[in-house]
Amino acid sequence: MRQVDLNCDMGESYGVYTLGADELMYGSITSANIACGFHAGDPSVMRSAVRQAIAHRVKIGAHPGLPDLIGFGRRKMEVIPDEVYDMITYQVGALQAFAMQEGSQLHHVKPHGALYNMAAVSPALADAIAQAVHTIDSRLILYGLAGSELIAAGQRAGLSVANEVFADRTYTPDGTLTPRSAAGALITDSALAVKQVLQMVMEQQVISVAGTVVPIQADTICLHGDNAHAVTFARELREQLEQQHIVIQAVSANS
Amino acid sequence: MRQVDLNCDMGESYGVYTLGADELMYGSITSANIACGFHAGDPSVMRSAVRQAIAHRVKIGAHPGLPDLIGFGRRKMEVIPDEVYDMITYQVGALQAFAMQEGSQLHHVKPHGALYNMAAVSPALADAIAQAVHTIDSRLILYGLAGSELIAAGQRAGLSVANEVFADRTYTPDGTLTPRSAAGALITDSALAVKQVLQMVMEQQVISVAGTVVPIQADTICLHGDNAHAVTFARELREQLEQQHIVIQAVSANS
Amino acid sequence: MRQVDLNCDMGESYGVYTLGADELMYGSITSANIACGFHAGDPSVMRSAVRQAIAHRVKIGAHPGLPDLIGFGRRKMEVIPDEVYDMITYQVGALQAFAMQEGSQLHHVKPHGALYNMAAVSPALADAIAQAVHTIDSRLILYGLAGSELIAAGQRAGLSVANEVFADRTYTPDGTLTPRSAAGALITDSALAVKQVLQMVMEQQVISVAGTVVPIQADTICLHGDNAHAVTFARELREQLEQQHIVIQAVSANS
Amino acid sequence: MRQVDLNCDMGESYGVYTLGADELMYGSITSANIACGFHAGDPSVMRSAVRQAIAHRVKIGAHPGLPDLIGFGRRKMEVIPDEVYDMITYQVGALQAFAMQEGSQLHHVKPHGALYNMAAVSPALADAIAQAVHTIDSRLILYGLAGSELIAAGQRAGLSVANEVFADRTYTPDGTLTPRSAAGALITDSALAVKQVLQMVMEQQVISVAGTVVPIQADTICLHGDNAHAVTFARELREQLEQQHIVIQAVSANS
Repeated sequence: MRQVDLNCDMGESYGVYTLGADELMYGSITSANIACGFHAGDPSVMRSAVRQAIAHRVKIGAHPGLPDLIGFGRRKMEVIPDEVYDMITYQVGALQAFAMQEGSQLHHVKPHGALYNMAAVSPALADAIAQAVHTIDSRLILYGLAGSELIAAGQRAGLSVANEVFADRTYTPDGTLTPRSAAGALITDSALAVKQVLQMVMEQQVISVAGTVVPIQADTICLHGDNAHAVTFARELREQLEQQHIVIQAVSANS
Repeated sequence: MRQVDLNCDMGESYGVYTLGADELMYGSITSANIACGFHAGDPSVMRSAVRQAIAHRVKIGAHPGLPDLIGFGRRKMEVIPDEVYDMITYQVGALQAFAMQEGSQLHHVKPHGALYNMAAVSPALADAIAQAVHTIDSRLILYGLAGSELIAAGQRAGLSVANEVFADRTYTPDGTLTPRSAAGALITDSALAVKQVLQMVMEQQVISVAGTVVPIQADTICLHGDNAHAVTFARELREQLEQQHIVIQAVSANS
Repeated sequence: MRQVDLNCDMGESYGVYTLGADELMYGSITSANIACGFHAGDPSVMRSAVRQAIAHRVKIGAHPGLPDLIGFGRRKMEVIPDEVYDMITYQVGALQAFAMQEGSQLHHVKPHGALYNMAAVSPALADAIAQAVHTIDSRLILYGLAGSELIAAGQRAGLSVANEVFADRTYTPDGTLTPRSAAGALITDSALAVKQVLQMVMEQQVISVAGTVVPIQADTICLHGDNAHAVTFARELREQLEQQHIVIQAVSANS
Repeated sequence: MRQVDLNCDMGESYGVYTLGADELMYGSITSANIACGFHAGDPSVMRSAVRQAIAHRVKIGAHPGLPDLIGFGRRKMEVIPDEVYDMITYQVGALQAFAMQEGSQLHHVKPHGALYNMAAVSPALADAIAQAVHTIDSRLILYGLAGSELIAAGQRAGLSVANEVFADRTYTPDGTLTPRSAAGALITDSALAVKQVLQMVMEQQVISVAGTVVPIQADTICLHGDNAHAVTFARELREQLEQQHIVIQAVSANS
């Protein structure tokens, strides 16, 4: 029986600033990636997000990013593996304390933005992340771009991993995401987005922008809560998956 | 047999900025209060400090502060108990991850600067700190100004506490520190400073600026590593304590 | 003929975070207080805000705050006059460069949040602000709480000043604002809020919460753009003022 | 008659953190590049640095950097030209206010660290910097790596420029600096460093690591004040230049 996890970035507000329709998304997802204060999130936002996730029985993941609040962690920075190892430790440790205080625990770690993208292609940065996560708690599941260096690093480190796919992004023939700067990078038709996800989950393949069939593993699907359309899409996608008798549940650690 | 703990603030460097003669102080102390990134310290500095403490067999404590790097956490801020509860959780959690990664664990928590001073007189802020610490790990020891509201809050929360005294500060007849702004607040003669400490540790009392005898409990003595004189004084003080057959060791949690 | 200025805080977004319906407010106001990066605003937000103000022929003011992004500059900090003098210089200087680059210039300075409130009652902090503004450009107009220490400091420094009043806040018999924590601090009935403003502008007096008549000078009215109700109220108030033949225009420097 | 400017980065302290022997360097230099709060420096440090420069009759330049205090502005960030244009405006504007308050004015702008290096090779970022500087004050002189894209952009923008050379770095046959990561990048023998400078200033050429003669224009020499050796070297270099009758004075704007 097929199963898939639905994840969404949460807790990205900061002080008086509100971002994301977190409350509306909890009904659609099974795991939440909570910002840890570097690219978004502050201590009080983190606590609220942890409490919300627990109340909705959604798994809690850390979503550490680069120290760049103005750029929301989306601007690549020339960081070395040791710096990454330390910034992952700091952020995951901080969120872990909130989760434990509230009677829960961390389930996974998913790097954010530029850090996610850099780790997808750099074995050295990917290893730094995977090793930091492993030494904090070897039961944590590492979320990364499907088939990327981050997934490979997680496996090298002995972590359970979750291959993440995107509903609203197209893929190249080599299985990577079409860069946002390229034409056709985004899927704006929600029916097509649903169709792509179903194919990825049920057949473990995706049709690339070149029309070729590309094998892909879809353990978890990245959803967004940053606008009304995205919230609606998340509900639709979940319904469609359930109609196909796909089990919607959080990724489990390897036994 | 008398015993006392000698503590010092550590890991207060930041990026390229170096502060404190940490390496020179480890030989004199038994517990280190490591900054957690808000008033000082960055993730890489935190890791180095944790490693140094472990190498010197010195107990590791978290030293959380207000989010004010320019002011080094020394400027009072109008924070509410919930904010303090959350900022303690965040910082202690972050340091805890480094300690655990390096094969050790946290021993105590000592708030820094303005947060320490505010918690010494505000039961509400003191309770926020004590409860945050207790819910993270009830075995952590709370360090606070001897006889202050923070000590009382720690006891209310069920934590072991450590009454902290100062070698280089004078005391008022009610057992509080003479404000730095007042004449005679500092003891600059190191022989007098040693004498005051010995009296506090051996007789559990101190002579106030008014000449009165004030009872005081001295579980731990705050030392400084921010200048050459302070480093030398720390060594002298330790020698004098040892000559009086006072056992120099970290505070233990109540059994 | 009576006249009054209508001002609103603008440019309080930050990175991906959006705050305030700036675009909707420009039609109602005559002067904009633009955040300068400490409590809100980033360099790119500042440029956008300056361009918007110029496009709408609204006067540009600097809105410097305390260095506390998480607290949005609303938490009092124990800062000394020299620190305030320097943080005003830094922020006003930064905004001034944007204004000049875009072919305009600064018209006024209004401190934000806790800094505004602290300067309203502390002559020393008020003087630090007034002197910093005066030495940057003696033609700048200093906005402050009507009748406060900040207004007095501006006059001592030789600056033109603008006494600011609030439509949605009640006043005590001594002419200060009823603290937000007290019952009856806010006026939620917009008809009453309009009535209070008209009385302040046309009769230079306000009815206090105790029912007494209090003299007050209303050079400028503080409006808000942070919710839909506030945007509508701003339009209504402007219409009511115009119906009373009150000239709506920015404060002018004393000749 | 030959002349050359000697510049040094100044005002890089931050809060309680002290960096650089600023006071010892002023006797050796003719222009100071003062940090503006993003990679180093805070408002109070900026004021002190401006006052020191004025007291020593040294020209004041802005030294804007990337928003990365932990990394001291040395880590490349993926910033776009508009962001750079705005961050230059913000920082230069802030320092300009301090200079004007203290009765002086800005003389030049030199980007710091990673921003300097990125602008040396990216025409788009270099143009953003040059245009921001030009629109703030077209009389400002732009300092950049000798022969780099930043120098070319300054000339395109209509600014006076200063080609900067390094005493302690070796050059490749194409006139660029040998990367720090390569062997032989640094000149540690101060006699050789002085010799290289004299050749660059007097003969407008440098011997590359490959032994070839490379033409180079040396308008200003970058000195450092971050250690005792550097302070001594600065004095030696100045003496040697004076013995060769080279006039030591700040770069002048083109007439």
